[in-house]
Amino acid sequence: MIDIVRPTLLLDERKCKANIARIVDKATKAGVKLRPHFKTHQSHEVGRWFRDFGVTQCTVSSVKMADYFATDGWNDITIAFPVNPLEHVLINELAAKIKLNLCAGSKDAVQLLHNSLKHPVKVFIEIDNGYHRTGIQPSNKEEIESILSVIHQSALMEFAGFLSHAGHSYKAAFVDEVNKIHTQSKNLMIELGKFYRERFPLLELSIGDTPTCSIADDFSGVDEIRPGNLVFYDLTQATIGSCHLEDIAIAMACPVVEINSHTNEVFVHGGGVHFSKDFLSREDGSVSYGQVVKLTERGWALPPLKMFVKSLSQEHGVIHAESEEISKIKVGDVIGVLPVHACLTADAMGEYFTLEGKRIVMMR
Amino acid sequence: MIDIVRPTLLLDERKCKANIARIVDKATKAGVKLRPHFKTHQSHEVGRWFRDFGVTQCTVSSVKMADYFATDGWNDITIAFPVNPLEHVLINELAAKIKLNLCAGSKDAVQLLHNSLKHPVKVFIEIDNGYHRTGIQPSNKEEIESILSVIHQSALMEFAGFLSHAGHSYKAAFVDEVNKIHTQSKNLMIELGKFYRERFPLLELSIGDTPTCSIADDFSGVDEIRPGNLVFYDLTQATIGSCHLEDIAIAMACPVVEINSHTNEVFVHGGGVHFSKDFLSREDGSVSYGQVVKLTERGWALPPLKMFVKSLSQEHGVIHAESEEISKIKVGDVIGVLPVHACLTADAMGEYFTLEGKRIVMMR
Repeated sequence: MIDIVRPTLLLDERKCKANIARIVDKATKAGVKLRPHFKTHQSHEVGRWFRDFGVTQCTVSSVKMADYFATDGWNDITIAFPVNPLEHVLINELAAKIKLNLCAGSKDAVQLLHNSLKHPVKVFIEIDNGYHRTGIQPSNKEEIESILSVIHQSALMEFAGFLSHAGHSYKAAFVDEVNKIHTQSKNLMIELGKFYRERFPLLELSIGDTPTCSIADDFSGVDEIRPGNLVFYDLTQATIGSCHLEDIAIAMACPVVEINSHTNEVFVHGGGVHFSKDFLSREDGSVSYGQVVKLTERGWALPPLKMFVKSLSQEHGVIHAESEEISKIKVGDVIGVLPVHACLTADAMGEYFTLEGKRIVMMR
Repeated sequence: MIDIVRPTLLLDERKCKANIARIVDKATKAGVKLRPHFKTHQSHEVGRWFRDFGVTQCTVSSVKMADYFATDGWNDITIAFPVNPLEHVLINELAAKIKLNLCAGSKDAVQLLHNSLKHPVKVFIEIDNGYHRTGIQPSNKEEIESILSVIHQSALMEFAGFLSHAGHSYKAAFVDEVNKIHTQSKNLMIELGKFYRERFPLLELSIGDTPTCSIADDFSGVDEIRPGNLVFYDLTQATIGSCHLEDIAIAMACPVVEINSHTNEVFVHGGGVHFSKDFLSREDGSVSYGQVVKLTERGWALPPLKMFVKSLSQEHGVIHAESEEISKIKVGDVIGVLPVHACLTADAMGEYFTLEGKRIVMMR
């Protein structure tokens, strides 16, 4: 194990590559295109690991992130975020050199894009498949037609198809619930596809979030899946049932700086600026910002210890520990913490260290 | 106003300097040393604004941050975080060139520090003044003595005094409550000082958080104050009563990317990776991740609009807006959002733009 002196985000390359291999295999068997979302890892290096498995297209969540991956040779990128017409300069730069797929949920956005577009792009119409964040209701054919009419006016825009994100699967408490969400949202997209396929024989249906792509197997009728978090997984996904704790590929290493045996608290360097602040509710009504694991020569041991991160300040992590656990810990130790939300933790840290000590930088 | 195309953290230099001027003036009048906490702004440039007001010492929350400010000429720095003995290499590098003040709440930490120390440092003993995070109970003279005994064994450590952080003032709902916390924690420190001053005539008492330093005026009996957040302030501080909304010196500018008038939602680019995820509870039981303001040529208009950020995904901000407000907003607009917690938002963004368009970088 590398020498750790401050909060350090460890990346188990073997677990990560196993996660990649698993979804590549599943997509191949299901006959669906895999366009992994790179917002979780935000790293050229991890992107290359996907490429080693034959993946040649990716998804990102911002124009800036598309630019970052385009500079590393990715030339077929979908920005799965409502197109922001104000970013037309960078959008045009990218559209001039790669196959750029944008995403829109309103006529206004597409109209503004049309006004400033100088190079060809494909445009997905985002569909709200039950998550109720962005996107158009599938029944709202009027709005869909209004977007299509703008696309057709433009010599530079091509209708790509329909894209949706079943983000409500993150709130699912059980595997069965995820399966139900998957079936519902997939069928909804397939119905929509049927309705428009005669006019647009090449339209694609793009779905996929980590819970449904991890748990479901049947992707017949859709064209591509876009899971992101599964490259690392995290406690939220393990709780849903998307993964086993053994699949989680990142852990924060935190130095122990103080111990209070009277209050059953262990204080570590590792706070809100390292983990970000997503939490999970515990059965007793308390919350957890992470579960403690023992670091070993080869990574971290499982199952986790009973200790969990009960609160976070900017730099402090406060860990609840039972007396028998406290007695085994001392100031100067380094403990591991499995994160609640890998995407935000990775983003907050900006870099990883593999267990072999290789530093992997992220977009900044 | 500068041209904004993606989430951008605006810094109103005039308001920020007014906040600095106000606390400098208060400290001068109170006859107390101001050692501002730089964890909020984490920027050489903003640090220099303090220096322009005659401030020559600062507080930071990590060894890395001490190093960052030392490279910009700060040569008297307190790291107000339990000393992490694993960081001895950088601690020694810093101690060799600046006046470095560390902070400890346990004998173990000081002993480990002693084992690796090569250059002189001062050591504050951290006292728990009611916040119940790190620090020693003031009544626990045994623990204090055990730390003092290690300090005395060391030719390189000097006892600096007692340091505390009344972080429970952040949970105060009223100005009166803040005043009460201030008086209690200040008196507790003064009592402790009296007990030890005969043996240590030069010991210093260091207190100070933004609510108490903003609201209270009487600092007699203590030596220095270390507020940080007040350089920018935020909605949390305005809610407590530490500041007026007019004093908040930063706002996030977010492009509007989609509007759903049926659900009264406006979607902006600006999510958890931009704001971090601290929130305030609203009277109706919902939560707010930020309050919307109208951006103007000179910054942003007050009072805020009724719109607030109701949820955050990684890149999406979802804003609740009443119908009459929605009708005034369109895709392609840029709206401002006052942050709930300035420190975490600034840390997440990594840079500011002043209203005049000057880019101010932060530690990375």
